[in-house]
Amino acid sequence: MSLTPCRLACIQCAYPGSISSSLELHDRLIREAAGDGASLIVLQELFYQPYVGARIEEAHFADATTLEGSVITHMKELSKELKVWLVVPFFEQAGPGIYYNSAVVLNDHAEIVLHYRKNHIPEDPGFHEKYYFSPGDLGYPVVETPWGILGVLICWDQWYPEAARILALKGAQLIVYPTAIGTLSTESADEAHEFHDAWQTIQRSHAISNGVFVAAVNRVGVESGTTFWGRSFVTGPFGNILNEAGKDEEILHTTLDVSQVESVRTTWPFFRDRRIDTYGPLLKRWAKE
Amino acid sequence: MSLTPCRLACIQCAYPGSISSSLELHDRLIREAAGDGASLIVLQELFYQPYVGARIEEAHFADATTLEGSVITHMKELSKELKVWLVVPFFEQAGPGIYYNSAVVLNDHAEIVLHYRKNHIPEDPGFHEKYYFSPGDLGYPVVETPWGILGVLICWDQWYPEAARILALKGAQLIVYPTAIGTLSTESADEAHEFHDAWQTIQRSHAISNGVFVAAVNRVGVESGTTFWGRSFVTGPFGNILNEAGKDEEILHTTLDVSQVESVRTTWPFFRDRRIDTYGPLLKRWAKE
Repeated sequence: MSLTPCRLACIQCAYPGSISSSLELHDRLIREAAGDGASLIVLQELFYQPYVGARIEEAHFADATTLEGSVITHMKELSKELKVWLVVPFFEQAGPGIYYNSAVVLNDHAEIVLHYRKNHIPEDPGFHEKYYFSPGDLGYPVVETPWGILGVLICWDQWYPEAARILALKGAQLIVYPTAIGTLSTESADEAHEFHDAWQTIQRSHAISNGVFVAAVNRVGVESGTTFWGRSFVTGPFGNILNEAGKDEEILHTTLDVSQVESVRTTWPFFRDRRIDTYGPLLKRWAKE
Repeated sequence: MSLTPCRLACIQCAYPGSISSSLELHDRLIREAAGDGASLIVLQELFYQPYVGARIEEAHFADATTLEGSVITHMKELSKELKVWLVVPFFEQAGPGIYYNSAVVLNDHAEIVLHYRKNHIPEDPGFHEKYYFSPGDLGYPVVETPWGILGVLICWDQWYPEAARILALKGAQLIVYPTAIGTLSTESADEAHEFHDAWQTIQRSHAISNGVFVAAVNRVGVESGTTFWGRSFVTGPFGNILNEAGKDEEILHTTLDVSQVESVRTTWPFFRDRRIDTYGPLLKRWAKE
């Protein structure tokens, strides 16, 4: 199956200090990416807010939005105006006291064509997400685009091979990971290096084991003592890094030919040999006898 | 829990041209490894035979052995004499016309304490294993050793995050991968580099996602046009490479403190957040709707 190459743009930037200036900044960067030819634009996790997980702070709930709220409505208008598809990660209010770490995919007709709620929620020093978010309840959706089948996972999901595998089994050819990961002020340079290396390696491994393209989009800048790494990157369907951003604000443009997925999966036919009759223990928390 | 550090030795070597000289070579290398202080010695896949998968050749069945056969009996005697534990991968005949790509773990009292049959069987140019072997039927066993809980997977298993995850869920702290992987004469240097990189990356990813030590033991030399890479390696429980062999015959000694597994898993508490309620699709061959 021959597909149009996907002109992917990953936008990484710092939180500029207020919600209104953050929305303005993203508006400008999205217009710039589209002007430079992007057809699919992916934003970072919780795109218009600070990384709320840094601290437990009740005030952040006030800046959440709904699918019908002004932020998503504006992004829909933007996708239609610029004729681009957008992956928009946001702090979703689903009801009174019900919040998710979510993302929508918008097509170029201002329609929501995918809605995902982050399934794996961290709670660690500097990443207090269990305070804000319920675990996702929408499974692992995928959506057909003009360039192939797209799936979205969010940040902490990236450490779970199960999540990427399920998207691939559902047909995904490109998986994007909006992210907010960085180094705490208590961590050493050696730890930062080791953590970044593991972060990139685990996402490359999802490309390898599943024969899919992977793109990770990570914020930059310093918030509440955490230095976000940036270094958004894109890999081919055998884990080869195609493109990588630096540590500062950047629009990372990469052209992907998703039809490569099929040839990689015949050279490396991992899906053929999965021993699904033996995988029952994967559904347990702990299987020690 | 504090454990004795494991003095691991991985033995990689070329097939010397006959079964008898191969058995002699391994006998010598095992004695050398033990003499240099190894407490756990891991051999390469199908250790005493050529890599039979290179070609479809009926004669190779004649060199298979049983658990009670002379090869395993000799290795048991050796483990007792040298006071070492051995991981012995071999071409197992289980009955008339029933063969597996297997491994046993022998303790230092000449006892078989683990028996594994390779679950994922490749069939690709230069890797014709489905001709020889039935898929494994013994699940994913683990065994408690003086240095922690050990699991064994074999070669093609290494591309499946499911296999490593199941061993970790069963308590494994160290996973070893006896292997035979290399470059076919039809493949370019660029491909060889890309394939080797993916091979190392996917195994490092199992260490990362599971917080386990991983050791891969790969043969060297040229057989039927395939150049085996060697480059056996050992990673810590966050995917950091602790030690790596070259391309020639080598005994790779590495000291492992398996009690690190616990501290890595509290820093990176991936097991806490697995969404086992959402993993049902992993038991399907294909889940596209």
